[in-house]
Amino acid sequence: MAHLDDLTEFLSIPSVSAEPKHAADVDRCADYLVGKLSSLGFSAKKYKTDIHPIVVAHSPRVEGKPTVLIYGHYDVMPIDPIAAWQSPPFEPTVREGRIYARGASDDKGEIMAHILGAQELIEEQGSLPLNVTYLFEGEEERGSYSLQEFLKRPEAQKELACDIIVVSDTGMAAPDVPSFSYGLKGVCCFELEIFGPKMDLHSGIFGGAVANPITTLCEMLATTHDENGRITVEGFYDGVSEIADWEKESWKRVPGMSDAELADLTGVPALRTEKGYTGAECVYARPTFEPNGIVGGYVGEGSKTVIPTHAVAKISCRLVPGQDPVDIMRKVEAHFKKVCPPSVRMKFTMQHAGDAYMSDPHSPFGKVAQRALEETFGNPPVLVREGGSIPVVASMSKLLGKDALFLGLDLPDARIHSPNENMRLDIFEKGIAMAKALLRLMSEVKA
Amino acid sequence: MAHLDDLTEFLSIPSVSAEPKHAADVDRCADYLVGKLSSLGFSAKKYKTDIHPIVVAHSPRVEGKPTVLIYGHYDVMPIDPIAAWQSPPFEPTVREGRIYARGASDDKGEIMAHILGAQELIEEQGSLPLNVTYLFEGEEERGSYSLQEFLKRPEAQKELACDIIVVSDTGMAAPDVPSFSYGLKGVCCFELEIFGPKMDLHSGIFGGAVANPITTLCEMLATTHDENGRITVEGFYDGVSEIADWEKESWKRVPGMSDAELADLTGVPALRTEKGYTGAECVYARPTFEPNGIVGGYVGEGSKTVIPTHAVAKISCRLVPGQDPVDIMRKVEAHFKKVCPPSVRMKFTMQHAGDAYMSDPHSPFGKVAQRALEETFGNPPVLVREGGSIPVVASMSKLLGKDALFLGLDLPDARIHSPNENMRLDIFEKGIAMAKALLRLMSEVKA
Repeated sequence: MAHLDDLTEFLSIPSVSAEPKHAADVDRCADYLVGKLSSLGFSAKKYKTDIHPIVVAHSPRVEGKPTVLIYGHYDVMPIDPIAAWQSPPFEPTVREGRIYARGASDDKGEIMAHILGAQELIEEQGSLPLNVTYLFEGEEERGSYSLQEFLKRPEAQKELACDIIVVSDTGMAAPDVPSFSYGLKGVCCFELEIFGPKMDLHSGIFGGAVANPITTLCEMLATTHDENGRITVEGFYDGVSEIADWEKESWKRVPGMSDAELADLTGVPALRTEKGYTGAECVYARPTFEPNGIVGGYVGEGSKTVIPTHAVAKISCRLVPGQDPVDIMRKVEAHFKKVCPPSVRMKFTMQHAGDAYMSDPHSPFGKVAQRALEETFGNPPVLVREGGSIPVVASMSKLLGKDALFLGLDLPDARIHSPNENMRLDIFEKGIAMAKALLRLMSEVKA
Repeated sequence: MAHLDDLTEFLSIPSVSAEPKHAADVDRCADYLVGKLSSLGFSAKKYKTDIHPIVVAHSPRVEGKPTVLIYGHYDVMPIDPIAAWQSPPFEPTVREGRIYARGASDDKGEIMAHILGAQELIEEQGSLPLNVTYLFEGEEERGSYSLQEFLKRPEAQKELACDIIVVSDTGMAAPDVPSFSYGLKGVCCFELEIFGPKMDLHSGIFGGAVANPITTLCEMLATTHDENGRITVEGFYDGVSEIADWEKESWKRVPGMSDAELADLTGVPALRTEKGYTGAECVYARPTFEPNGIVGGYVGEGSKTVIPTHAVAKISCRLVPGQDPVDIMRKVEAHFKKVCPPSVRMKFTMQHAGDAYMSDPHSPFGKVAQRALEETFGNPPVLVREGGSIPVVASMSKLLGKDALFLGLDLPDARIHSPNENMRLDIFEKGIAMAKALLRLMSEVKA
């Protein structure tokens, strides 16, 4: 089917934004979008940036109708561990009603659903009933640096001027339960490196006399949470507001998000949540501190009894409204400086950061979006917050002065960021129908 | 010079015992020794084992004279990080009076010094004045499994029957200060692996609800030492005797082993010792717990915000007389089981283990060995214990019923187990002279 051909072609391009070796692939992916949108009559343009290009496309102008800015990202996460993939991540493969490929649900599947939804409207009615601007970036998985810079330029803000922002890079609760999100987590990423001896040391000849950087790194990371799972960094929770009772109530009804269901889905023997909160509450509304990677010393075959020169941890925090990512990184750095012993040297490196965001689910466009979801999926959407982050959305909303709405298609078992990422084909088709309904219904809102 | 040619040829063979890809090189290294010793009139033999061969060689029988068993190992440590080597580890290179190569000081340099010492005696006197048996193994750096098995065989014990065991795989305090060691540390190596979710998880979609295996591994490792640097594993110090006052006194006089000198040599901002002990005391006589490697999650370029499925630490303990390595591993496993939270699964894997050892420095052979060192280096040797381990020595001494003496040539800056391992050429020459003196003086001891 034509829809699947378009999606397969799009998914076949290995647009991994974090790895320099894929730079040309990311660029090729942007060209693909420009070509596809131009063929639909959009004026599509590829903007060069310091890293990866930004694609902006406008539908033919319709006077007196609102303008909707639809945001997505065409870059994808790295693929390792490659051995865990049942089919090659960039050779889209259909198994049991799902298409498996890196980017299938995050975020190429959604982008293609929006494009194909518009395409069907154009094929049926000759043109779109409102003004659509597509904004697709190639750096979301690495921090959206270039789009953040792009948004600061007045001419860019003029070009992206709109009445409402639609983001389709979020989750849905279950195949028959659409999700309408009104919040996103912020994020900050940083590295902590611990330096000990100037060369790898024989653990017999020097062991006991010098600090082991691995031990020290572990001891320092172990100071970040207390026995209740609360983060101990001083001031970490400043400005964090409690979860509203109506939220707690509605989140209890979100399919798949009970503690038992979360444990089953992830395969853990038991959840580990912040004391006093359910898994869903921690995912949607509590900040986190997660080492995403750690390495030090000899990790090859056999054993090598060394005290290594250094050890490093890559860490990210998910943040909630009221927390400033850079302020949080400063507080974390201060915490580590406080607990770092004199027997080692530490290096703290700030990486990318993005604000959390919350919008009003009850605005006119918000209500219309929920109706589009209900029409398409046959059920009213559940109102949730996202555990994930789209760092650039907060800036976009602030700089363009408009709300952002989140209509997601990622199912909990879509394995985004994991091996065997996939999208259900029936959800993909519904995504196309949802995109059509959204444009039709939004065209009736008074801009 | 001929001596250097022999050493260079020996060092050029990449006999890395821990890495399967070097199995043929290890075998070739054993053949080299058989050839070299045969050319000196020894009856030399290569014994096949399950892993790497053992070389045994006997000098022509001299009745009424003692038999000395000289032990060494011809295998070497892995070479990574390769980038840190100034010259290729298996292309021996002389710079400023030192020869740089993996194995230069651990232990090929010592082996060659013993062989060339015997060669000179044979060249000068036509034969050796006593009975010499060489025992060279190829698995010391990976736990001496095959030699341990070999020693259990009665025919092997018969073949290795001797009056005294000489081990030259230990350290010396300074170029002009020979060392006579009377103790070796034991060792045990094991792995701790922590398993969490069944697939790598998006840290936004699930973060806060499930335990992060990296965090948990760090928290568990952080429970192994208290604020005084003491190991908290229950029963860890059972059977460990205090350091004798005469030892503490003599160790204060060991060149290069003051806390300031150790910090300077290793380049650490400050030592981290067990409270109440100097660096030298910790190295020589206190047991240690050292993670030698740790890895988990995403450690590639850029960032990847995942909660990984698992994380693993490779760990080794250096032990002292009174500690049984297997008993210690059981206690460590019990400790980790006690502190492992219900939100993850743990796997503990025992690897190789070896006993600590102590001998009497004042036996007849012990006194003779000290005299050989004094004659060669012009100074009386300092009496020390080794921080390092030669797991097989304790078994050898027990099974053959004879003492083992340790005459070392590894200088503190020889960088054994590290990049740019080296041996001073003047020390190598003195090692040859020491070997000659040792054989001559030992021939006079009443067997």
